[in-house]
Amino acid sequence: MPRASVIGVGMTPFGVHEATLPELFAEAAFPAFDDAGISAGEIDALYFGNAMGGQTENDTHLAPTLTSHVGLAGVPAQRFEDACATSSNAFKHAVEAVEAGLHDTVLVGGVERCTPETGLGTGAMTRIFASASHRQYEQPSGLTFPGVFALLTKRHMYEHGTTDEQLAHVAVKNHANGTLNPRAHFGRDVTTDDVLDSPTVADPFHLFDCCPFSDGAAAAIVTSADTGASFDGDGVAVTGIGHATDVVPLADKTHPSTTQAARDAAAEAYEQADTDGTVMDLAEVHDCFTGAEVMASEALGLVETGDGGPAAAEGRTSLEGEIPINPSGGLKAKGHPIGATGVAQIVELTEHLRGEANDRQVDDATKGVAHNLGGDAATTVVTVMEAGT
Amino acid sequence: MPRASVIGVGMTPFGVHEATLPELFAEAAFPAFDDAGISAGEIDALYFGNAMGGQTENDTHLAPTLTSHVGLAGVPAQRFEDACATSSNAFKHAVEAVEAGLHDTVLVGGVERCTPETGLGTGAMTRIFASASHRQYEQPSGLTFPGVFALLTKRHMYEHGTTDEQLAHVAVKNHANGTLNPRAHFGRDVTTDDVLDSPTVADPFHLFDCCPFSDGAAAAIVTSADTGASFDGDGVAVTGIGHATDVVPLADKTHPSTTQAARDAAAEAYEQADTDGTVMDLAEVHDCFTGAEVMASEALGLVETGDGGPAAAEGRTSLEGEIPINPSGGLKAKGHPIGATGVAQIVELTEHLRGEANDRQVDDATKGVAHNLGGDAATTVVTVMEAGT
Repeated sequence: MPRASVIGVGMTPFGVHEATLPELFAEAAFPAFDDAGISAGEIDALYFGNAMGGQTENDTHLAPTLTSHVGLAGVPAQRFEDACATSSNAFKHAVEAVEAGLHDTVLVGGVERCTPETGLGTGAMTRIFASASHRQYEQPSGLTFPGVFALLTKRHMYEHGTTDEQLAHVAVKNHANGTLNPRAHFGRDVTTDDVLDSPTVADPFHLFDCCPFSDGAAAAIVTSADTGASFDGDGVAVTGIGHATDVVPLADKTHPSTTQAARDAAAEAYEQADTDGTVMDLAEVHDCFTGAEVMASEALGLVETGDGGPAAAEGRTSLEGEIPINPSGGLKAKGHPIGATGVAQIVELTEHLRGEANDRQVDDATKGVAHNLGGDAATTVVTVMEAGT
Repeated sequence: MPRASVIGVGMTPFGVHEATLPELFAEAAFPAFDDAGISAGEIDALYFGNAMGGQTENDTHLAPTLTSHVGLAGVPAQRFEDACATSSNAFKHAVEAVEAGLHDTVLVGGVERCTPETGLGTGAMTRIFASASHRQYEQPSGLTFPGVFALLTKRHMYEHGTTDEQLAHVAVKNHANGTLNPRAHFGRDVTTDDVLDSPTVADPFHLFDCCPFSDGAAAAIVTSADTGASFDGDGVAVTGIGHATDVVPLADKTHPSTTQAARDAAAEAYEQADTDGTVMDLAEVHDCFTGAEVMASEALGLVETGDGGPAAAEGRTSLEGEIPINPSGGLKAKGHPIGATGVAQIVELTEHLRGEANDRQVDDATKGVAHNLGGDAATTVVTVMEAGT
């Protein structure tokens, strides 16, 4: 049963932007208004995500500023921050608010600037990104996120025999998908040799196993399942959203490579939607590193546990495969403006489920799932969407 | 009609703390568990507020860390940030979630460290606090928050004849109340001469017109109105919550001294609770500066517009007055750990409405209102609570 409908979406190209955060956000919000055929006066609230504007640009309390900037001055608005799962959390709360009858129609969005356009260099940005790991147990050891996911992936390799080459195939696939996405940060093909020959960042990850950090914004208009049909925008149903957390430090996780929060969130979302991972037509998953996509594909039940590496290497997760994963190019090629990533996944699912994804359209897509994680895989939000309102 | 019940509260003393953010949060959460007579396993989610941990301590993605730290690992948890209105926003969403049946019982809390215990000096902290004003229009001009509220107050003085002496009476009253609150940052009386003779910070504000920045945490257990009675903790009903925003830059506000977001939020909360400001027994308002309390007392309808200054000077808002405002001592004397302040107001109302506020108990308190604002009075959350579940 639909919990809510997405009736309009918009996003900026992901990459390098000079625009301020309010301007960048507006470049996603206004297209979402147009796509929904809605005016600002019909929107009751803003649910907004930004992860690090305070740290990068000394810009906090952004919710009312953005609200005014897109013509909604006065409506309730709030900022969510949950590391890389920031705007999927905003989306979850927007869906819940609409379903509960608290608001009829809301704007959800995320925005972030992470590139040197902020004026910060690699050292400063690395320290800021690391703020989402454990402050007392991990930051003092210098464990930044390539290391966090490298350790998780090394364990997966040990347990399941996943190989460097299989990981490289994830990068090759997502770069290929990115060439079909005009909004992607990276738009060129790479080979497995390109990946394996690129410098090692944190073993087993080479440079091309790692997503970039990007500037960008994404927005969606969420309305109740009942009222969605009264708007011009083609509605896509949200049928399930799961949200779970896990302990943060890697050393405290019971079984690191299972990414338990993802399994818990998926179970919750699938139960709500009365479905499971085996019948999905496409998935947008949080491939901050190639190993993260492998683990996500298993946690979501898209493939069997341990089969994530072979599935990628054999093309089963490619655009023409059994279960296309990250048709957008994923974080790997589309880019990763932290606080915008969760809603950007919703934008991608919406376009496929409407049949409007152009060159990268997944054929006959009627059901999709999004997976957005934060920090040491310690927050995960999983969303199921289905064609029609 | 009750929307939800608060069945347990806890908070740390406000002041200077060496404890890390998770430790400090636990010092509020565990007493709230005990007060409610509840164990961690009975709690379904964490709604959490922190305003500036990323900027002050490079500590973000705190929701799962705090969740684990108090024994709730795995439950959904999210961080809210809306400047000084951070944890009242978390509280609002918790109440809405419980009312909608999404969760039975949740933990709400806020934590912040703002004192030199963070390792930052006054210059760095001033820049961080200013991040909640408008990044493009106000920060470049050096307009920090004493200036923002001084300008609002100057306008109020011009329009209504409010005087320096009347403002000083707000400080005198709140310091007096603070002497009765063992958790207050400041615990000594001051006189109007002390206030007026203290150095000018931003005309019309002297040093003693300004709240301190504090370290501290506050927590509350929120459950549905139906299930509240099954727990040991005495329940207090939440009957209304309003939330509104306004444009951020002072220069864009239609009528600055009205603090329109507060009026809009109060109207919403009062409508839900079928009440108004004239029948409140007590109020906790956001007195970051004495002028802010004057404007809040009017926006909430506790006194007539323009009468806030005389009401304070004549003792009508004192503990024994017609409408006691800030029996806790307010931000002025109790202290202001940004992200904890909103929930601390809920703690204070709960204690009065249970008759457990000891030396500062407002007699026969059955109905109270809390007012928590963020930034340039651009986010305001107003909450009405009533004795009994």
